[in-house]
Amino acid sequence: MNLDQRIRSVIRDVPDFPQKGIIFKDITPILMDYQLCADIAAALVAPYASSQIDCICSVESRGFLFGMLMAQQLKVPFVPIRKKGKLPGKTVSVGYDLEYGTSIVEIHTNFIEKDWRVLIHDDLLATGGTAIAAAQLIEMEHGKVAGFSFVVELEALGGNKLLQSYCQMLTSLVRY
Amino acid sequence: MNLDQRIRSVIRDVPDFPQKGIIFKDITPILMDYQLCADIAAALVAPYASSQIDCICSVESRGFLFGMLMAQQLKVPFVPIRKKGKLPGKTVSVGYDLEYGTSIVEIHTNFIEKDWRVLIHDDLLATGGTAIAAAQLIEMEHGKVAGFSFVVELEALGGNKLLQSYCQMLTSLVRY
Repeated sequence: MNLDQRIRSVIRDVPDFPQKGIIFKDITPILMDYQLCADIAAALVAPYASSQIDCICSVESRGFLFGMLMAQQLKVPFVPIRKKGKLPGKTVSVGYDLEYGTSIVEIHTNFIEKDWRVLIHDDLLATGGTAIAAAQLIEMEHGKVAGFSFVVELEALGGNKLLQSYCQMLTSLVRY
Repeated sequence: MNLDQRIRSVIRDVPDFPQKGIIFKDITPILMDYQLCADIAAALVAPYASSQIDCICSVESRGFLFGMLMAQQLKVPFVPIRKKGKLPGKTVSVGYDLEYGTSIVEIHTNFIEKDWRVLIHDDLLATGGTAIAAAQLIEMEHGKVAGFSFVVELEALGGNKLLQSYCQMLTSLVRY
């Protein structure tokens, strides 16, 4: 099996989560297979083999899972983005719309250095709202968005188009 | 510098977080140093070099950071524990007291196999309440707690004693 098939073979459809009528793509069974996790992280950083990446940024919580493995593979820093109020010390924040409601995410100030090329990772691309908020935080810290990287992309929700207006480099390993 | 010194040299004291009068130990600067992250994960699994570990369990969000690296090093599954309502599909849950208020954590059913020896990891040991809740979840799923593993331990809060009544194997790399 190729990587796409290996990922699809373990992702679970969970009906009516987080609410009735939605079929949720559950990536947690991937975590049971350490080799698959390593191969996913390698595939997510592979497009950047010949370009400079200075840091990986991921949004909690699921973004932390592969984000840390990606940082290990590229031998670069990992800078976490968290929900409002979770990061101690000085932060900048951005609010954004969710499918239902709004959210605020934060990043530490002065962790990202000026002009760093930052690779943004999350496990799943839906509407792209969270990834855009991450990109805005990075730019507020004077970094540059080098690319977006996801394990799963839900194509019908249009996140790809929204993000490509921000940065052409976008990787997703499995598309539904 | 040895590992203890390297970790201490980057952990930040953040005063008045999450509330006035508390000096918070911020581990996020560790994540800026990929080699230190790898060395921490190696040190956390080293005590288990000659014993069987079948799986790493960590509590979101910060537990995911080193938990995934530990699972890679041991070449074992990673099973996430999350706050109530975050895991899709069938779960079991445990409520526990926090310093201020209460919380509920959940684990997927049927991810941990019967009699699996599970290593519980979190970034920081304070009162031990979260770690005990994680241990209870693992036992509800018929796994066995093989050990507890933390990057930082706040000794004055007594978590060590509470957890050792549950399992003798407890590792913390830096103690304050």
